[in-house]
Amino acid sequence: MPIQSEIALDAGHGMAVARTLRALRQKRPLVHSITNLVVNNSTANALLAIGASPAMVVAEQEAAAFARIADSLVINLGTITAPDARAMALAAEAAREAGTPWVMDPVAVGALAYRSNVAVELLAHRPAAIRGNASEILALAGLVDPGAGGSAASGRGVDSAHETETALEAAQGLARRTASVVTVSGAVDLCTDGARLMRIGNGHPMMTRVTGLGCTATALLGACLAVEPDALLASAHATVLIGVAGELAAERSRGPGSLQLELLDALFLLDDATLETRTRLEVQAGPDAAGAPA
Amino acid sequence: MPIQSEIALDAGHGMAVARTLRALRQKRPLVHSITNLVVNNSTANALLAIGASPAMVVAEQEAAAFARIADSLVINLGTITAPDARAMALAAEAAREAGTPWVMDPVAVGALAYRSNVAVELLAHRPAAIRGNASEILALAGLVDPGAGGSAASGRGVDSAHETETALEAAQGLARRTASVVTVSGAVDLCTDGARLMRIGNGHPMMTRVTGLGCTATALLGACLAVEPDALLASAHATVLIGVAGELAAERSRGPGSLQLELLDALFLLDDATLETRTRLEVQAGPDAAGAPA
Amino acid sequence: MPIQSEIALDAGHGMAVARTLRALRQKRPLVHSITNLVVNNSTANALLAIGASPAMVVAEQEAAAFARIADSLVINLGTITAPDARAMALAAEAAREAGTPWVMDPVAVGALAYRSNVAVELLAHRPAAIRGNASEILALAGLVDPGAGGSAASGRGVDSAHETETALEAAQGLARRTASVVTVSGAVDLCTDGARLMRIGNGHPMMTRVTGLGCTATALLGACLAVEPDALLASAHATVLIGVAGELAAERSRGPGSLQLELLDALFLLDDATLETRTRLEVQAGPDAAGAPA
Repeated sequence: MPIQSEIALDAGHGMAVARTLRALRQKRPLVHSITNLVVNNSTANALLAIGASPAMVVAEQEAAAFARIADSLVINLGTITAPDARAMALAAEAAREAGTPWVMDPVAVGALAYRSNVAVELLAHRPAAIRGNASEILALAGLVDPGAGGSAASGRGVDSAHETETALEAAQGLARRTASVVTVSGAVDLCTDGARLMRIGNGHPMMTRVTGLGCTATALLGACLAVEPDALLASAHATVLIGVAGELAAERSRGPGSLQLELLDALFLLDDATLETRTRLEVQAGPDAAGAPA
Repeated sequence: MPIQSEIALDAGHGMAVARTLRALRQKRPLVHSITNLVVNNSTANALLAIGASPAMVVAEQEAAAFARIADSLVINLGTITAPDARAMALAAEAAREAGTPWVMDPVAVGALAYRSNVAVELLAHRPAAIRGNASEILALAGLVDPGAGGSAASGRGVDSAHETETALEAAQGLARRTASVVTVSGAVDLCTDGARLMRIGNGHPMMTRVTGLGCTATALLGACLAVEPDALLASAHATVLIGVAGELAAERSRGPGSLQLELLDALFLLDDATLETRTRLEVQAGPDAAGAPA
Repeated sequence: MPIQSEIALDAGHGMAVARTLRALRQKRPLVHSITNLVVNNSTANALLAIGASPAMVVAEQEAAAFARIADSLVINLGTITAPDARAMALAAEAAREAGTPWVMDPVAVGALAYRSNVAVELLAHRPAAIRGNASEILALAGLVDPGAGGSAASGRGVDSAHETETALEAAQGLARRTASVVTVSGAVDLCTDGARLMRIGNGHPMMTRVTGLGCTATALLGACLAVEPDALLASAHATVLIGVAGELAAERSRGPGSLQLELLDALFLLDDATLETRTRLEVQAGPDAAGAPA
């Protein structure tokens, strides 16, 4: 049964998502990932399933060189250690220099001081995109600009303590200060570059019962950055892709074990018609339209 | 087809297990895990499936802070390195100070000197529970009290070279010396606090064909510690939960691939009626009743 | 539907593969693995499914001791870091001294300088077998003997940029210089000890959509080395085992999620009759017969 959502179906945006997916499958972008110990395997499989070519290259000796030849870079702070932090900084710096677009997933930033500092330092290398839940985005915005409505105290881990919409203003501020597109994940997902705003209503509650599907969304976002130069579209389209695949998977599952399997099959099988009939993506012109002061 | 077991069905204990499961699903405890490279993903998924909230926080810079805010802590020595050992010591110390209950899985202790020393040192931080196979428990008991019937030489790795019952006396001695509840896994599982003893007859032989289901049992034990203050009940109930889920999964599987998927679905779908009709748990009053000298 | 292959079915070789599998299931060899972050879980599960006993022991403090008691050793460079490199060198050295056969998977060698140097240094410890794709074998051969037809510049990561046959001469040269059996993976796989040559035509294109199935093939090769003293046969038989299991899995799958599950079930269920009717293995007497100059 289809999921209820306040975001209406939109076939036009569905066709745009389908175009991004076709470009991805044609290019097979090499996605350099420095991610966490929990999702190395599952995100590699998701990237392969959708048509990208993942490569987890994590050594300090190799991270910069590989970020230069990759088509995009994914940095995820989920289980960060000091060697990881050094490799991430080297990779992000090389990516910036080489023009390789990259995305950061600030997992549990705000809940733990060490990774919060790492995340702020990585922002100097200008990610094209940032993706996190409301608690993480509120925390990161507060760290970057303590006076501007973010919140440094939040969350106890990977699960958000906040509703998505509460992070809208913080996300817009963070996007403007970092020149990144910020995605806030939740029942409704928000993507903003500080001016434009998109809301996505795809996905299924059961997806929170499989570990690392947020990390998987970030990995797919990295893959889309390699084929869609507008990071707002790349972020929104990746959010639709994982959301629609999650819906299809939930419809075929009995529980989280089968959901995980079906999600990989669904990413592999996604086609134009499915995206045109399932995409829930809504555009708002600017921050004022969202009721949020600039 | 149901598995034969020398341990009889017991609906009363099944109802107690079901109460623990309901408490777990209601609280959604934050389970801090420093575990091995093989099972980070699979134990996170098992914890999510049953209703807990896993968080793998492994850096030395973060382990102590996170152990203080978590509801319980799981430490698993499976692929331990020196940075892991430092993080584990910091986490265990913080857990003891904060009153966060924690469980240790001494994977392959006895077979390798380095991790054997780490395990003994961690015991100073007073785990609420210890869970291993007969070889591991014999080895750990021998390391803690070389004159008391344990065996320092055992095993070649993760598979036990000993029957469960051969470790009964060692488990009881280890429990008394460490003030922990000790679980010995096997075809029949034993849980003891040194005085009380429980035997659990759930589970299926096919579970040994999926990597890390012992580690998964330890992870679930950690989750149960967050909701059941009696560590003997927490240990026994976790053992029943994974065992019953494993039986259900084996009945729906063709091999270890499908077993792994079905186990996650079964953990998610477990309900009172299933636990009341499947639980095989037997209580013995004290060490003498088990035929083991104190 | 069966896959087309230029390599003919051969029941005689199928019976030989089945004998290796029976020996493996009887011995349950302890396979010490120092492998990459993406495949620790999936290769452990594949080894368990086929009947081996995997143990991922990765610490510098433990690697040598464990390599001495293991029945074989698998070293995979996929996500190598400096601590990994030290543990690998210690394990490989101990394996050589103890007579433990070992296999190296030079993932992405050639694309990255750091791991290329590590791979060349590990060769001093005389692996019984080396297994990689054409780009990796061309690169490694070029590093070992720069004047002999290899190619140091190749690949961008884990996917080969070369056809298998283009690496035949390099593989034969590498095998002779290192006294190892070299397997080149691809649509048709080659195994050579420098004199003898085998081609295997099993497998399915969908296998490239699941992460780390090349690493899984290497892991199974390690298991076969523990029961088949002729490393050429061990390499070829492992290649058939994963290939046939992959074919069976592809026939039962909708996509890469179900393929991954079905592969584990297929490895567990493999039997003599299936191997006798599915094995595609062709032997050529010597390098001249393959059209390659010695």
